[in-house]
Amino acid sequence: MVKALAFDTFGTVVDWRSSIIAELGVFGETHGVQHDWATLADGWRKGYLPAMDRVRRGELPWTKIDDLHRMILEELLGAAGITSVSDADVDHLNRAWHRLNPWPDSVAGLTRLKERFVITTLSNGNMSLLTNMAKRAGLPWDCVISAELFHHYKPDPEAYLGCAELLDVSPEELMLVAAHPGDLRAAQQAGLRAAYVTRPLEYGPNQRAHKVAEGEFDFTATDFLDLADQLGA
Amino acid sequence: MVKALAFDTFGTVVDWRSSIIAELGVFGETHGVQHDWATLADGWRKGYLPAMDRVRRGELPWTKIDDLHRMILEELLGAAGITSVSDADVDHLNRAWHRLNPWPDSVAGLTRLKERFVITTLSNGNMSLLTNMAKRAGLPWDCVISAELFHHYKPDPEAYLGCAELLDVSPEELMLVAAHPGDLRAAQQAGLRAAYVTRPLEYGPNQRAHKVAEGEFDFTATDFLDLADQLGA
Repeated sequence: MVKALAFDTFGTVVDWRSSIIAELGVFGETHGVQHDWATLADGWRKGYLPAMDRVRRGELPWTKIDDLHRMILEELLGAAGITSVSDADVDHLNRAWHRLNPWPDSVAGLTRLKERFVITTLSNGNMSLLTNMAKRAGLPWDCVISAELFHHYKPDPEAYLGCAELLDVSPEELMLVAAHPGDLRAAQQAGLRAAYVTRPLEYGPNQRAHKVAEGEFDFTATDFLDLADQLGA
Repeated sequence: MVKALAFDTFGTVVDWRSSIIAELGVFGETHGVQHDWATLADGWRKGYLPAMDRVRRGELPWTKIDDLHRMILEELLGAAGITSVSDADVDHLNRAWHRLNPWPDSVAGLTRLKERFVITTLSNGNMSLLTNMAKRAGLPWDCVISAELFHHYKPDPEAYLGCAELLDVSPEELMLVAAHPGDLRAAQQAGLRAAYVTRPLEYGPNQRAHKVAEGEFDFTATDFLDLADQLGA
């Protein structure tokens, strides 16, 4: 019955935290500055939800993630006293989010799932970010779909329903795959099916497990290969 | 300077005419009807421009190509006296446009061009059509972009400029690749660069050559492999 799988990306497909910490380390070496880069990476990610919420509430006009990331980054660099970096270098650092590395199972799992389903991103990342990420990491999407196309960030229902409409499937023929229960619950609310993939290291070694009720989602998998097994792909 | 290539699809990447004639032949055999399928294929394609123009002029609200194709097909089948076919079978036939075969050089050429450029569709075909076509034919797009995302059909400038915006490149960093001078001229008008690929068999063996002025486009190529050679890809 499910025809297409839509994947959340940050945390679900790619390991943003270790990628961003590594990029910040290179940035620090290049510019001769030292800092607790893990804390800065976590702060950068932490700023993302409230920034999107400002867009969702209408306090900001539509603003894509590249620009939200840049606003947050400038604040964090300022607070850390890192102020003598050129605009081009800050821009390069900001695009670290285009260069995130996939989890070890992502490419192999997507390649199997693609045999059986249409596979797309459904991410709050903007189109160019997702396209550059896929190109670099070899993610074999059938197409790239972003909240940018709807001017509605997840968990707004417009994002989930807009994805189904573009793929020309009904909401129940579309399954969101995500490592985040909130995203999955909003997808279910919009009529989609939901597959929860645990990513216990997304927020680092001390991450607490998400609270999920037994049987809350259609599938629960430890990674994309396990999901492919369960879906017969 | 060019960072991304946007490809027209019908006629440029895929050979719609021979694919549609073959699909109509199968349809005729299945339903025990005979007809001049080449003429019907040409009529189907010929109905497409005026149908889009009705949308472009605002006579019709936004209507995707699948639905325009269906309107035209029903008229043609009616005129041919083919009226006893089920809705599901007409729908399957209508989706022949999702199952078009690529020109012999398309996949190999795109694979080379993808090494050097971001490659996307920029087609009037809807997202699901382009996604299904790419999946079946193995077209290695970095992303799929359709006029459907802008609710503006080419040659409206919104389609060309919208594509550049989603890819986060300036118009002059984006080059349209197409077999149709009119499409290329509209792209140039919007500030894009233009590569003309000749497809002398698009409209069948009796096709007249398009009229193109010397040096009118940035590149003129005989196929995608020739274009890859010229672009050093």
